[in-house]
Amino acid sequence: MNRSTPRLINLNADLGESFGAWTMGQDQALLPWLGAANIACGFHAGDPLVMRRTVRAAQALGVSLGAHPSFPDLQGFGRRRMDIAPDELEALLIYQIGALQAMAQSEGAALSHVKPHGALSNMACADPALAAVVAAAVRALDAQLILLAPACSALADAGRQAGLRVALEVFADRRYLPDGQLQPRSQAGAVIHDSAEALAHVLAMLRAEALISPDGPPLPTAIHSVCVHGDSPEALATAQALHSGLRAAGYQLASLSEVLAA
Amino acid sequence: MNRSTPRLINLNADLGESFGAWTMGQDQALLPWLGAANIACGFHAGDPLVMRRTVRAAQALGVSLGAHPSFPDLQGFGRRRMDIAPDELEALLIYQIGALQAMAQSEGAALSHVKPHGALSNMACADPALAAVVAAAVRALDAQLILLAPACSALADAGRQAGLRVALEVFADRRYLPDGQLQPRSQAGAVIHDSAEALAHVLAMLRAEALISPDGPPLPTAIHSVCVHGDSPEALATAQALHSGLRAAGYQLASLSEVLAA
Amino acid sequence: MNRSTPRLINLNADLGESFGAWTMGQDQALLPWLGAANIACGFHAGDPLVMRRTVRAAQALGVSLGAHPSFPDLQGFGRRRMDIAPDELEALLIYQIGALQAMAQSEGAALSHVKPHGALSNMACADPALAAVVAAAVRALDAQLILLAPACSALADAGRQAGLRVALEVFADRRYLPDGQLQPRSQAGAVIHDSAEALAHVLAMLRAEALISPDGPPLPTAIHSVCVHGDSPEALATAQALHSGLRAAGYQLASLSEVLAA
Amino acid sequence: MNRSTPRLINLNADLGESFGAWTMGQDQALLPWLGAANIACGFHAGDPLVMRRTVRAAQALGVSLGAHPSFPDLQGFGRRRMDIAPDELEALLIYQIGALQAMAQSEGAALSHVKPHGALSNMACADPALAAVVAAAVRALDAQLILLAPACSALADAGRQAGLRVALEVFADRRYLPDGQLQPRSQAGAVIHDSAEALAHVLAMLRAEALISPDGPPLPTAIHSVCVHGDSPEALATAQALHSGLRAAGYQLASLSEVLAA
Repeated sequence: MNRSTPRLINLNADLGESFGAWTMGQDQALLPWLGAANIACGFHAGDPLVMRRTVRAAQALGVSLGAHPSFPDLQGFGRRRMDIAPDELEALLIYQIGALQAMAQSEGAALSHVKPHGALSNMACADPALAAVVAAAVRALDAQLILLAPACSALADAGRQAGLRVALEVFADRRYLPDGQLQPRSQAGAVIHDSAEALAHVLAMLRAEALISPDGPPLPTAIHSVCVHGDSPEALATAQALHSGLRAAGYQLASLSEVLAA
Repeated sequence: MNRSTPRLINLNADLGESFGAWTMGQDQALLPWLGAANIACGFHAGDPLVMRRTVRAAQALGVSLGAHPSFPDLQGFGRRRMDIAPDELEALLIYQIGALQAMAQSEGAALSHVKPHGALSNMACADPALAAVVAAAVRALDAQLILLAPACSALADAGRQAGLRVALEVFADRRYLPDGQLQPRSQAGAVIHDSAEALAHVLAMLRAEALISPDGPPLPTAIHSVCVHGDSPEALATAQALHSGLRAAGYQLASLSEVLAA
Repeated sequence: MNRSTPRLINLNADLGESFGAWTMGQDQALLPWLGAANIACGFHAGDPLVMRRTVRAAQALGVSLGAHPSFPDLQGFGRRRMDIAPDELEALLIYQIGALQAMAQSEGAALSHVKPHGALSNMACADPALAAVVAAAVRALDAQLILLAPACSALADAGRQAGLRVALEVFADRRYLPDGQLQPRSQAGAVIHDSAEALAHVLAMLRAEALISPDGPPLPTAIHSVCVHGDSPEALATAQALHSGLRAAGYQLASLSEVLAA
Repeated sequence: MNRSTPRLINLNADLGESFGAWTMGQDQALLPWLGAANIACGFHAGDPLVMRRTVRAAQALGVSLGAHPSFPDLQGFGRRRMDIAPDELEALLIYQIGALQAMAQSEGAALSHVKPHGALSNMACADPALAAVVAAAVRALDAQLILLAPACSALADAGRQAGLRVALEVFADRRYLPDGQLQPRSQAGAVIHDSAEALAHVLAMLRAEALISPDGPPLPTAIHSVCVHGDSPEALATAQALHSGLRAAGYQLASLSEVLAA
């Protein structure tokens, strides 16, 4: 990358996680600050009407649309580990991505990416076999879809091995372990609540081109996107701080496909 | 239509109505005799794995793939009337059709048609407003999809008004009322169990180009497809009798789009 | 009723309507002002853990526990009309009430009453046959359970005909039609947002021993309980205003069984 | 046990595993040969109407009623491992057992026992912490309920530690590993299809008062019940063979509570 050209970075968040009469998150407030929306597909959150409305809202602001598929677990919000056979998991993923793809299609839009949710993502980040199933599902459906995956994860590796474009993300509000996994939320300091601190954390990683943990050496990695957790109280402040802070630091906010093409 | 050219007719049935550990129907046995498969989309039957396997089986035999969406009602098999707001129903339909569309896409195939299931179909056949919602959903997703609808129904009218291609079907194993509705199953004689009788019933309607009821004059209509109910014990015998009997009577079995193009 | 003895009245609200990761209502704030809690049973809201916590919270404050069963419709929050066969509906109700009964039993408590939710309640208030199914389910499970039903409803009639104790409720925040039905929420003025106005509305009905509508004569009825809708923004203010206002007006707040025994 | 008195043994099977329009098993044919029915509670199979009908059928033949609760997993038939927090699992179990308890109560009957299903059972048989949650749920609801658990399992241990009566079962149609676990179904010979062989296997274990595996020494254990898998094609033949063969061998078929009281 030529340092005289603007460096591109994407901001993503999980949206459309309301369900029926229950609301979650602050999608409308967050959307103006985002470059990519990962939209729940009905298995952990997001019913068809919520999906369609979220597609419309994101499209109206030019935010890229991504599928955020999950284990089938509404009651557990997709956060409970499940043991699902590979062929069944592949079918579950195609089903969910396809349902959201149709919502986009009905609005004249298309999906740019897929980002697994919750326990499915956590398991696929550590288990190459499961990660391969996720990548195979995306590839079987549409090999042009970008896989948005945590940097330094088995999921990212599987995406590349499957021939997919893979966008690597870091988390603005979470501290890392030396091996690149996230510190468990139960550990003190694992979650960054202050938006200025989150910005500093992100900038440090972008400049180092590495994951940075309190207790180990940097883990070199490309970084294409920064994830803001949409359901935290600080989400909006963090998104705004990142949006302005990254621009002030010389970054240009972009879509996933623009970042990958740079 | 030039009477010296073969007259085309389509045979359709509802397939993929197993769910998880439970099986229903005799899909593999029926498929060779069909021209169009209406595949459950997970809301009344058919989980993602069942959907994918049904898509593969139909595609392997060159049977056209259609979505068979329903009210969200697994326990009631989509047979219970529900009161769903129009925008929500439209989203539910796009979701289901899209999920099946993705299954087809992942197998290198595409959907040819949509046929609503159960209570949704019954209500849409009698209620023009509900029928318009169904047609709008299909059109919003893909205006090239054929709407497969009962002949002489509000659903068929709504499809035409929405600018969709509409294929009109008759039921091989059911008697009609003078107004073109089906005799309720609770009436004696409403269901035709004998396959030869079903064939005669279908041939009479095809020759008359009309719905024929025991107690009223024929209702003129084009007829593009004949539905065999896949979950009846006589389904296989009826499908075979129709397949051979229609050919013997000079009809050529065809896909929905071939029949509509004739 | 001897006017020199304190007149008893009950305050009830629907609680436990969170689900999984989604919260609804302000149960903890409302509970101290209530005499009866109608607890969702998992079919329109309320998962097993929410149910158990709500039982514990209500029991800790001595608030009577009631089941608030619904049509099976999480996505529609039980507000969508469904057409369910009588034997299936009876089984659905026994299932839900039994599940909550077990939560109470596991905490050393017992249920005092049953109040149907949403579309099920609305339909049973107008349809004597459906109302009879609801009453039969309650009676089949435990003939000592009180049926909490809107005053002047087919549901209340069915409860009495089944030999159940029936507590009659009025709504603090809703205007009535001359026939005793609620004004649809879509009509201007149908919902009372001001807590002082709600109190005045309730007191007028209690003094008249009648439902009062803007456009018709009073409909005489006993009134045993006043319902506060727990999911409105004004719910807490209304509950507090009723609690203090009713006491100031000489009423003593009591459980449903105390009011019925008076 | 005095060898001159008849030795008591119970036969149990899992029933009520149909769902909505889908049927499974051959409940009516099996029931006459059983002493205990483990009835699905709606989370892996068995809707409320199926539950009620199964309760009625079992009660009509004097077969003891037990709850057969599961992880919440209809699509996976409760066979997929899930990671559910202890307080949530306890609530899920109380919910399911309570729902079935209410079905029994509405028919003038009561539950005698609880037997966990599928992946929940498999996990609880090997994980003492999970087993303790299951036992705590049963005890919290009704300390008189018998826990029906595989012999030599952590689940059985947890039941005894919780102060429950525990009935120990062996499987008629499955071979054991030396440690008392079942041979995985994937191993050749793991499943016994011949009913005479199943009877011989059971009689050998009863006479040895031990689990018997092909490759290890007997594991001594009391045996109170023999499980027949209701969903296998051989289920009926095996149940009949056990019923007559055990009586011919001097055993008296009895309810779980009779066997435990002996």
